[in-house]
Amino acid sequence: MIAGHPFGACLPTFGSCADRYCLSGYGGASTMDAMLDLAATVEGLDGLELVGNWHVNDENIRQVGGMLSDRGLKICMLVPDLWTQAKWGRGSLAAPDAPTRQAGIDEVRKVMDWAAELGCPFVDVWPGQDGFDYCFQADYIEAWKWMREGLAACIDHNKQVRVLVEYKLREPRTHCFVNSAAKVLLLLDGLGDAGVLLDVGHSLAAGENVAEAVALLADHGKLDYLHLNDNYRSWDDDMMVGAVHLVEYLELVYWLRRVGYGGWLTLDVFPYREDGVRASTQCREWMEAFFRAVERVGMDEFAAAIERADATEATALVRRALNM
Amino acid sequence: MIAGHPFGACLPTFGSCADRYCLSGYGGASTMDAMLDLAATVEGLDGLELVGNWHVNDENIRQVGGMLSDRGLKICMLVPDLWTQAKWGRGSLAAPDAPTRQAGIDEVRKVMDWAAELGCPFVDVWPGQDGFDYCFQADYIEAWKWMREGLAACIDHNKQVRVLVEYKLREPRTHCFVNSAAKVLLLLDGLGDAGVLLDVGHSLAAGENVAEAVALLADHGKLDYLHLNDNYRSWDDDMMVGAVHLVEYLELVYWLRRVGYGGWLTLDVFPYREDGVRASTQCREWMEAFFRAVERVGMDEFAAAIERADATEATALVRRALNM
Amino acid sequence: MIAGHPFGACLPTFGSCADRYCLSGYGGASTMDAMLDLAATVEGLDGLELVGNWHVNDENIRQVGGMLSDRGLKICMLVPDLWTQAKWGRGSLAAPDAPTRQAGIDEVRKVMDWAAELGCPFVDVWPGQDGFDYCFQADYIEAWKWMREGLAACIDHNKQVRVLVEYKLREPRTHCFVNSAAKVLLLLDGLGDAGVLLDVGHSLAAGENVAEAVALLADHGKLDYLHLNDNYRSWDDDMMVGAVHLVEYLELVYWLRRVGYGGWLTLDVFPYREDGVRASTQCREWMEAFFRAVERVGMDEFAAAIERADATEATALVRRALNM
Amino acid sequence: MIAGHPFGACLPTFGSCADRYCLSGYGGASTMDAMLDLAATVEGLDGLELVGNWHVNDENIRQVGGMLSDRGLKICMLVPDLWTQAKWGRGSLAAPDAPTRQAGIDEVRKVMDWAAELGCPFVDVWPGQDGFDYCFQADYIEAWKWMREGLAACIDHNKQVRVLVEYKLREPRTHCFVNSAAKVLLLLDGLGDAGVLLDVGHSLAAGENVAEAVALLADHGKLDYLHLNDNYRSWDDDMMVGAVHLVEYLELVYWLRRVGYGGWLTLDVFPYREDGVRASTQCREWMEAFFRAVERVGMDEFAAAIERADATEATALVRRALNM
Repeated sequence: MIAGHPFGACLPTFGSCADRYCLSGYGGASTMDAMLDLAATVEGLDGLELVGNWHVNDENIRQVGGMLSDRGLKICMLVPDLWTQAKWGRGSLAAPDAPTRQAGIDEVRKVMDWAAELGCPFVDVWPGQDGFDYCFQADYIEAWKWMREGLAACIDHNKQVRVLVEYKLREPRTHCFVNSAAKVLLLLDGLGDAGVLLDVGHSLAAGENVAEAVALLADHGKLDYLHLNDNYRSWDDDMMVGAVHLVEYLELVYWLRRVGYGGWLTLDVFPYREDGVRASTQCREWMEAFFRAVERVGMDEFAAAIERADATEATALVRRALNM
Repeated sequence: MIAGHPFGACLPTFGSCADRYCLSGYGGASTMDAMLDLAATVEGLDGLELVGNWHVNDENIRQVGGMLSDRGLKICMLVPDLWTQAKWGRGSLAAPDAPTRQAGIDEVRKVMDWAAELGCPFVDVWPGQDGFDYCFQADYIEAWKWMREGLAACIDHNKQVRVLVEYKLREPRTHCFVNSAAKVLLLLDGLGDAGVLLDVGHSLAAGENVAEAVALLADHGKLDYLHLNDNYRSWDDDMMVGAVHLVEYLELVYWLRRVGYGGWLTLDVFPYREDGVRASTQCREWMEAFFRAVERVGMDEFAAAIERADATEATALVRRALNM
Repeated sequence: MIAGHPFGACLPTFGSCADRYCLSGYGGASTMDAMLDLAATVEGLDGLELVGNWHVNDENIRQVGGMLSDRGLKICMLVPDLWTQAKWGRGSLAAPDAPTRQAGIDEVRKVMDWAAELGCPFVDVWPGQDGFDYCFQADYIEAWKWMREGLAACIDHNKQVRVLVEYKLREPRTHCFVNSAAKVLLLLDGLGDAGVLLDVGHSLAAGENVAEAVALLADHGKLDYLHLNDNYRSWDDDMMVGAVHLVEYLELVYWLRRVGYGGWLTLDVFPYREDGVRASTQCREWMEAFFRAVERVGMDEFAAAIERADATEATALVRRALNM
Repeated sequence: MIAGHPFGACLPTFGSCADRYCLSGYGGASTMDAMLDLAATVEGLDGLELVGNWHVNDENIRQVGGMLSDRGLKICMLVPDLWTQAKWGRGSLAAPDAPTRQAGIDEVRKVMDWAAELGCPFVDVWPGQDGFDYCFQADYIEAWKWMREGLAACIDHNKQVRVLVEYKLREPRTHCFVNSAAKVLLLLDGLGDAGVLLDVGHSLAAGENVAEAVALLADHGKLDYLHLNDNYRSWDDDMMVGAVHLVEYLELVYWLRRVGYGGWLTLDVFPYREDGVRASTQCREWMEAFFRAVERVGMDEFAAAIERADATEATALVRRALNM
């Protein structure tokens, strides 16, 4: 737990993180059991996020629940794999060809059923391959329509599982269609009972102030789940919490409390050259420090400063919150 | 005219453009008459965009229409001044204090009435001061509510004039609330008969692909007016069309034709160190070249390439379109 | 003083900061005496940075020293004005025309003599107008030669005063020639006894890690003076210290101690919507907090962590340093 | 050939390009023979760039020359592999530990000898893993010293082969030490007979104007080799030439002619979702179009416009050059 919130991590945190140069990865566990064993050593960890086909599939669906529960871990999220295979390279739910779009829908529905079977309340639809790289490569109006139709076809498929959509500005495409908090709200408008997964690093890299994104999503009843990580804004570096954006994280925690967010705080970090267990531990300690920091000043005092819109007072409060 | 579209410019194009260092500006006309005289020499120019209080006010409201029509120019847009005076420094329609918010509404309404009197169909509400500079300086939920309430209070004020909202990522605040095409659509959702002014440079600097923004806005029936300029993406440099983003402009023109945009093409450039007349002329020639370029390949052939989502084919078409 | 360093500020901090929209500024003192009176109220302030022609000129050169010393303030820097008048719009030391280049040299030399007369050891040559906005607008090889020749013509002019060059990526030009720590070192290579003014915000906006810039400059014996401020990396926002880059500032302070920097810590902030005295005070308190934070962990322990190049250990130290 | 320049490509262009999500790649040839067969079909291609250990190794060193010459292709560059294996994850020539630094030197020297044996005049030292991800993770002064010592230990190793250093702002580290044209010149200062490989995309992503980088490097006698590709400036997207920066490429070609560059024009593109042969062909056609475009206006006329530093004239010339 982190300040009363369930604390999760993506399973590959404990595997070997690769980039496009070092395709075999920089080191880490290589089997699912070994990754789970490492995850189980992270103090306070409550659950893991698993990816369809990688970690859950037709062969292991009966075992995977036990593999986690034996280690005292929940499955906090299942992610349909719409992005690790060449077949999704030109898109999934909004691919230019109808068969791929249908395959995307089928994939999401299948993973929804797995989630229901495993008692996991969410699937994370991240349409990372749905976008374009070059000008004159996408029909923006058609693609948007396809994306909405595809989501609509998934949302009601299994009432036990809520579809969450995760937005990102770019990567693996140079431009992704679903690229901001505002755009995901437009996307979901009128589509039914679905929500949003806010990845803090995606928000930062999209040029958003993440606290503002939290407020906007919560104000629309769509803030369901958080991915935590950090970056330098120009790319989704998936660094440890506490690496760069301390003030933004402090404000984020203030707003999470303000809007009454009670959901998961799940790490989505790529500790390429770091030990996954130690990296996860540092992230948890940073998050606890941010919650303590907000507590140190108090919600009311922050609210009063915000109401006065006074930057000098705000920065003094930040310094006090950090105990500097 | 530019390829059948009315061609406009912001009047200050012909004045002395200043930045925060050289506050007296780098040179250009200093009186309104002199600026109008210069504007009148720009071949093909059909209209001018005027700013409330700067160019139109209670004293000259009876004269200003004649000042333009005498030179064969229309007033294509009136812009309420919500950003050039210290009183708006902390916001206008979404300012933290109620009297400023009301003053913002009053200002927009006043300029709407002037617009109606002058036969100008639009006002451009650019809430550039509505935002924040520092973390813990804004109540995002309240501010959003205020912005919507303020716009609602303006939109129905004068049925002869349509309120257009112009979005921008940053400047003069480090963060503006209304900062993307998707967010302005969220903002206007349910507010009634209002539209969007798309500033191409704002779109580029917000990390958007501008053709996609055009498609999104038009798909929602909200693409009413365009500001043309260019920049290097990290700032609103207000450079001449043709400076940087040739491929993006070509795709923009394709999509303007595709969605049937028939409105104004108005320059919003700051020719700091250039002659305003020559700069405007270059912009017009670039725009005509882009329309010719789309014509050279043809709408159908572009559409077919887009349908195939083939980047190598797309780039070959771009080269052919440019006649290289 | 800040942790043993003399503490300075740019005089316009206490005036009315303007941007290109609100040219009359957002409020603040308007006379030099009023600005000095405000500056004198900033606790711990040791000196002020003045701009040639704005604050020091042939008329007041006899008085200006007394105006400061009466208030217990030193002149820590004189800045030749090479950027506030239209005549410098196309460049100063590297302008495309020879007379402007000579005028630039003359201006720097004049201000060097004023500095000597006032007992100020430095002038800050910031060639902000020397650059280009558009492609095909500059002869990069000639301009570089002119810049070096111009500096050479200044450096030896008055041995009592050291010429410092300040680099910046962009603004007021979209591209400035002298735009990084490495490039200013190349520029000064072989030119004689000159140094570098490192503006933290310029370094951040140039994509540098500022601690690395400090190390590089100090390693070349060229780290003479610091400007402190903060921004969001995409623009020179001139915000208060502590606004954004806490980790980077902490590392900066570590490296300042590591390389034995003993010079001025001078604010170059634009408190557009804030009170200059309160803003300066917050900056000083943040700086003192950063020095305390480095002390809390200790130089040796930081050095040991750096030697191990271990990011998880580094981030734990940062959190401990901040006392979170 | 491209306008009289030898035309090269990196061999992996014809393989299966992977990213960190789709590790098995999006499709393409998988054996070296198959990649070479594809390369041989690219009209006008003169040579290929090979990576040590991947494409050249102790087993195939006797065969590889013939594999290329049989297909009429030269080896234009050999690249020591300092970045595809976990052992380089924390650096190569500037790694924090001495054994890895020595291994880096040994690797470069070995590949230099291979290059000499194969008649390839260059090796490309790209120290992409030499940098840092987090603050407090690098000793900038030591690392710089190590990098210089390592290069010095390589440069004189084999006089038949010239060491070229390739700079890049970020990736695979969030910060690379050798990150700009100016910094690589500082790095090489005094180190002897070595040069620079300018990757156009790296230059763009580092915030440089690439034509200015060309001028700076050539002015120092260090412009030896070019990598061609394009991107959106925030990341090294390795897109096809002609994708984004048409004006910058035109100016680049002008400056290549101006400084008398006669070396290789080698593609370094990652056609993730495109066919490598078609993508390479498009790049060559774009480059030929840029050379034709410069010719259309003529070197003298461009030079005259540059001398006048007149942006409106410059943009008119660009439009004329493009034949629009």
